[in-house]
Amino acid sequence: MASIGIYGRLGRMGQAIAAVIPELGATLAGGADAGENPEGIARRADVLVDFSAAVAVDAHIAAARATATPILIGTTGLSRAQHALIDQVAEEIPILQTGNTSLGVALLSRLVREAAERLGSDWDIEIVEMHHRMKVDAPSGTALMLGEAAAEGMGVELSDVAVVGRAGLVGARAQGTIGFAALRGGRVVGDHQVIFAGEGERIELGHRADDRAIFARGAVKAAQWLVQQAPGRYSMDAVLGL
Amino acid sequence: MASIGIYGRLGRMGQAIAAVIPELGATLAGGADAGENPEGIARRADVLVDFSAAVAVDAHIAAARATATPILIGTTGLSRAQHALIDQVAEEIPILQTGNTSLGVALLSRLVREAAERLGSDWDIEIVEMHHRMKVDAPSGTALMLGEAAAEGMGVELSDVAVVGRAGLVGARAQGTIGFAALRGGRVVGDHQVIFAGEGERIELGHRADDRAIFARGAVKAAQWLVQQAPGRYSMDAVLGL
Amino acid sequence: MASIGIYGRLGRMGQAIAAVIPELGATLAGGADAGENPEGIARRADVLVDFSAAVAVDAHIAAARATATPILIGTTGLSRAQHALIDQVAEEIPILQTGNTSLGVALLSRLVREAAERLGSDWDIEIVEMHHRMKVDAPSGTALMLGEAAAEGMGVELSDVAVVGRAGLVGARAQGTIGFAALRGGRVVGDHQVIFAGEGERIELGHRADDRAIFARGAVKAAQWLVQQAPGRYSMDAVLGL
Amino acid sequence: MASIGIYGRLGRMGQAIAAVIPELGATLAGGADAGENPEGIARRADVLVDFSAAVAVDAHIAAARATATPILIGTTGLSRAQHALIDQVAEEIPILQTGNTSLGVALLSRLVREAAERLGSDWDIEIVEMHHRMKVDAPSGTALMLGEAAAEGMGVELSDVAVVGRAGLVGARAQGTIGFAALRGGRVVGDHQVIFAGEGERIELGHRADDRAIFARGAVKAAQWLVQQAPGRYSMDAVLGL
Repeated sequence: MASIGIYGRLGRMGQAIAAVIPELGATLAGGADAGENPEGIARRADVLVDFSAAVAVDAHIAAARATATPILIGTTGLSRAQHALIDQVAEEIPILQTGNTSLGVALLSRLVREAAERLGSDWDIEIVEMHHRMKVDAPSGTALMLGEAAAEGMGVELSDVAVVGRAGLVGARAQGTIGFAALRGGRVVGDHQVIFAGEGERIELGHRADDRAIFARGAVKAAQWLVQQAPGRYSMDAVLGL
Repeated sequence: MASIGIYGRLGRMGQAIAAVIPELGATLAGGADAGENPEGIARRADVLVDFSAAVAVDAHIAAARATATPILIGTTGLSRAQHALIDQVAEEIPILQTGNTSLGVALLSRLVREAAERLGSDWDIEIVEMHHRMKVDAPSGTALMLGEAAAEGMGVELSDVAVVGRAGLVGARAQGTIGFAALRGGRVVGDHQVIFAGEGERIELGHRADDRAIFARGAVKAAQWLVQQAPGRYSMDAVLGL
Repeated sequence: MASIGIYGRLGRMGQAIAAVIPELGATLAGGADAGENPEGIARRADVLVDFSAAVAVDAHIAAARATATPILIGTTGLSRAQHALIDQVAEEIPILQTGNTSLGVALLSRLVREAAERLGSDWDIEIVEMHHRMKVDAPSGTALMLGEAAAEGMGVELSDVAVVGRAGLVGARAQGTIGFAALRGGRVVGDHQVIFAGEGERIELGHRADDRAIFARGAVKAAQWLVQQAPGRYSMDAVLGL
Repeated sequence: MASIGIYGRLGRMGQAIAAVIPELGATLAGGADAGENPEGIARRADVLVDFSAAVAVDAHIAAARATATPILIGTTGLSRAQHALIDQVAEEIPILQTGNTSLGVALLSRLVREAAERLGSDWDIEIVEMHHRMKVDAPSGTALMLGEAAAEGMGVELSDVAVVGRAGLVGARAQGTIGFAALRGGRVVGDHQVIFAGEGERIELGHRADDRAIFARGAVKAAQWLVQQAPGRYSMDAVLGL
């Protein structure tokens, strides 16, 4: 039974993770927040999860390295330097870095890449998402992640083909582009749909997050998986064996 | 059995209307196109339908008036002066003017107005539509029509509350706004969905046009209905008895 | 600020209602459960809500009547005799009886009735719902309620036109029927969609319950509304002013 | 430019295939129907497609074999003996046998198998489809094909886990089952959706056939691909390089 230590224990995700740990057959090694000693918690844990703040991540990675403890980093807004640090430390310990810990989204992302690769450029790709009314940015990070997967399947860079916020006299759709549309309203946790529109047929690949707890559950499952891995840098794909 | 005359007989809609007339129990009185005499066809028809060009509409209305023949005007891009002319001539003959002749869309529009009126401003309204890749404008005219219906139900002007092309750091959703999103791809005839997102629940009211012929069928049914009406200006709502 | 008394306070709905009362500007008058005196709570409350058991409802109605307190009855499985009792007592006090306290479902039900009335019998009606894996019956009570609304709009009895569990060599669809399909899985709170399929177009009217709390919120809002009504028997429709 | 011969040239699919051949850069070698000589057409064609009747398929396979011409068999209702014949002849010529020639459905089928394999048995699988009102059987052949793909991913036999026509007091959902639901109405060509419902999240993988011509286009594209293959028995998967 893996013992999990949480950086960012008192944040929204930290609390959610602590809440689901018992039902998933793990134990809580304790949690560190601002001001506490990262190494203490790392020594007591079999695996660490980090949902803190980008500014604190370096110290948490250092603690994981010093104690040879696998670590999952779900904190967003990492700098290029921090990504380089992760690559470097991954030679010594298992590190999983991701912007979305839902296993369903990880699988969807994989299916989208495969579909984009097989269908070819005469199928138009559109990504539409809906989130609660308080979300301040559009498209969502997960929509962009799905767009990256589609672009990878097509063998192009997303930044070269993304079309956001279509409005006005935009002209006919340019072949090979990926369109994004964002809906906002109510308390929707997060729905995403990737549409492949061909000549007279459509493939629609979607994900609905009905409950915020899925992100916490996915993080715990990924952490349990990470305990058993060799050193290296992993993504959620790997947890599903993709 | 109503005899129908078509202005714009050789256009896409004119041809589609001529094609469905037999299956709907009507007859074709003939059709006039550029260069032909509008009054000749008006004299032979029980009712006229106009899917020509805005520049030609004045002459068609004059022919309908001169021969006291009911007329459905589906041509888009009418000027304010033309709308005033329609109001004036409607005192003498039945005139139905609409931007969308689908009976399903007419009903949806009515349901959207009613929902917006009943639900109140703590339900967020979003409108998403998908059309084929050749469509050059966004949002679609029908999406805007549905937005007008929602705004009417809320007792506001659409232009004061419409939000189009959400992209980037847009901030939290402002209460009372109506959001629009446009998807483009393949050969999709036209799908529309109006989402009302409340606290923990959503109402989704949508329409799918699976076949372009629905617009022709709706036009013929509306024309058959118009034959029996008193002078006045009508919309598609009236055809459904709404 | 209405003071609400709850029969069935310790049940799932009773607890949910108690939880949302503060955020909706009401107060909890207290709650009675099996063994407690129904009249005591009725005297302290401005309005009563009953989510107890059918066997207990008679005593709760009697307490509401004796104290002239409006009462909302959400308990299901009422007998014909109990419905007759409600009709009788409604001459003295306001009573609202319903099987679903979601305001969204109440509105959807109304829109479905209207659509069925306007569209006529050449539009086929299908109702599909999805609920969590523990639900033991199909179709859901709410799906049947939506079917009743459609049948009412068509001017027929649901029992004469309902088709459930289509499977095997069922033959072509009979005109004028209403089909039901049930999906089960995960923890889905409850999604319903009513599809009107015409010649080349579809109208889709749906509701998604993202959060179980909507039923509690709807019950509290309906109770707040009921306080201000004259004696009579009401349904959720009335709360929306439909 | 491949020259295509059609068995069943005057049937619905045969006519549709002949209609799309020019736009896809192929030519029509001619078509044989009942009473005509199968070998004549086989000699003139680079590749054959068969959408005739099960009773005629043996003779068409024999003609393909005698002339060493690749053949796509889309005729349904084949016997076990005919499947054995196809296996045998596939040692000499390329044969593609399929019940659905849509490339989109072929891809969806593959994605469903992969999702079922990765997600494991705590995700419930439900398959819902909608077809036009004249369809006499339920579930659709394509829904069953998608069910086979899911069952294969799960490592079980579909016949052991399929649940069709859920209605009445069916009890809680049994783990590891695959549920099917069928909607019928209007002129819907064919929509399919496979839902994977987990704890608080759903993955929805769907296909919409907006136009019957997709089946003809898929058949022609598969025939063009088949010309270039070595002898063997193929399915639509192979055309997409899956």
